[in-house]
Amino acid sequence: MLSNFKIVLVETSHPGNIGAVARAMKNMGMDRLCLVCPTVFPSADATSRASGAHDVLSSAVVYDSLQEAIGDCHTVFGASARDRTIAWPELSVRSCAEKFVAPRHASESFALVFGRENSGLNNQELDLCHYLLRIPSNPAFSSLNLAAAVQIVCYELRMAQLGQYEPPAIKNLPEKLATREQMDAFYQHLYETIADIGFLHPDKSRSIMRRLRRIFNRAQLDTRELDILRGILRFSQNHNAK
Amino acid sequence: MLSNFKIVLVETSHPGNIGAVARAMKNMGMDRLCLVCPTVFPSADATSRASGAHDVLSSAVVYDSLQEAIGDCHTVFGASARDRTIAWPELSVRSCAEKFVAPRHASESFALVFGRENSGLNNQELDLCHYLLRIPSNPAFSSLNLAAAVQIVCYELRMAQLGQYEPPAIKNLPEKLATREQMDAFYQHLYETIADIGFLHPDKSRSIMRRLRRIFNRAQLDTRELDILRGILRFSQNHNAK
Repeated sequence: MLSNFKIVLVETSHPGNIGAVARAMKNMGMDRLCLVCPTVFPSADATSRASGAHDVLSSAVVYDSLQEAIGDCHTVFGASARDRTIAWPELSVRSCAEKFVAPRHASESFALVFGRENSGLNNQELDLCHYLLRIPSNPAFSSLNLAAAVQIVCYELRMAQLGQYEPPAIKNLPEKLATREQMDAFYQHLYETIADIGFLHPDKSRSIMRRLRRIFNRAQLDTRELDILRGILRFSQNHNAK
Repeated sequence: MLSNFKIVLVETSHPGNIGAVARAMKNMGMDRLCLVCPTVFPSADATSRASGAHDVLSSAVVYDSLQEAIGDCHTVFGASARDRTIAWPELSVRSCAEKFVAPRHASESFALVFGRENSGLNNQELDLCHYLLRIPSNPAFSSLNLAAAVQIVCYELRMAQLGQYEPPAIKNLPEKLATREQMDAFYQHLYETIADIGFLHPDKSRSIMRRLRRIFNRAQLDTRELDILRGILRFSQNHNAK
């Protein structure tokens, strides 16, 4: 679970962004939202942008200071797009997720802190953070929308949580694949049919058949698809026989 | 570069989302935006939400149909949150990025297609896609805001781009893959041919064609293979006409 991670927004000025953050969190299975001195909260804008994430919004906790919001946390990450003159220890979002979303950290509490829309976090606030969290963005246009930044962070946490569950590269491949024997019968049928219609030249037929085999081998036909293709071949032969 | 990837938005109803998408793209170094029948465009809402990404917004291309928008693309990914009765081949966003952001794919064109805010992509639109792109989200609250979904996809593409250092593969380069347009012409030809031989029943033809599309989409035909298959169709038609 990701219940030991909380999202902390500092002095957010647009209430719509707070709603969008709530939605982004819930989409990734997170629900602990903290607001430090929001300009407007609660608000109809926030509720509207939250879509179905009203529960996250209504359980959000409002604080007067960042210190209070992160008081119970063991490790604090500050999101920042700006380069700093003093170099804080820096982590990419993915490294952060891969390192801290792990059973051995399950009893610790983490805060991910996001600053103001215009100016981010100031140096006093970053002093409270253990790590500066970096989203690798276009150097020429690096400032993400607040909810977009939270979306990426929560997505990486979820990906790390899903961990070894990471779905196989390609899912939903047909259940019952055709056997080698069924495929051979199909290729024989295909060969006869294209010979019938005069497509095959004796001197080229081997390389043509090789290419056709490669196509259908790559597609990995299931038995139902094979039935359809053989149906087409049968119809073509019957039609020709007329 | 990610210049061979384009983002295609289908019938977006809220112009603000288009602006937010432009910003999300530019933040990750992407700039090719296509809009299929947007409800309102251009619009002040889009411009305002784009923040500094006006260039992406103003160079966006508007199309009347999805077919046109992806006509020049070799591989098309459809983002979808819904479960489908017919199972399309599925890829996680990360697998997609890791697989296709690579020097050996640098000369191919890719489209990432995002559907309507309320209802996503319909089955006819998914028929044009090679893969269904899946963002692993909370099953109890899976529908992401449009710009948030685009943000995650562009982020993963950028991460893959930053992460790869392999020298370009110089051996065994595949032949040129067929474009979406060439595949559509092939499916039309296939449809006519199997109608000619009497294989198609009017009430079943849509689902049969869908299954046939899935087979050949999966195989990812190159242009030479396409020539062979179209040659077979031509011979079959000529033979029937005798």
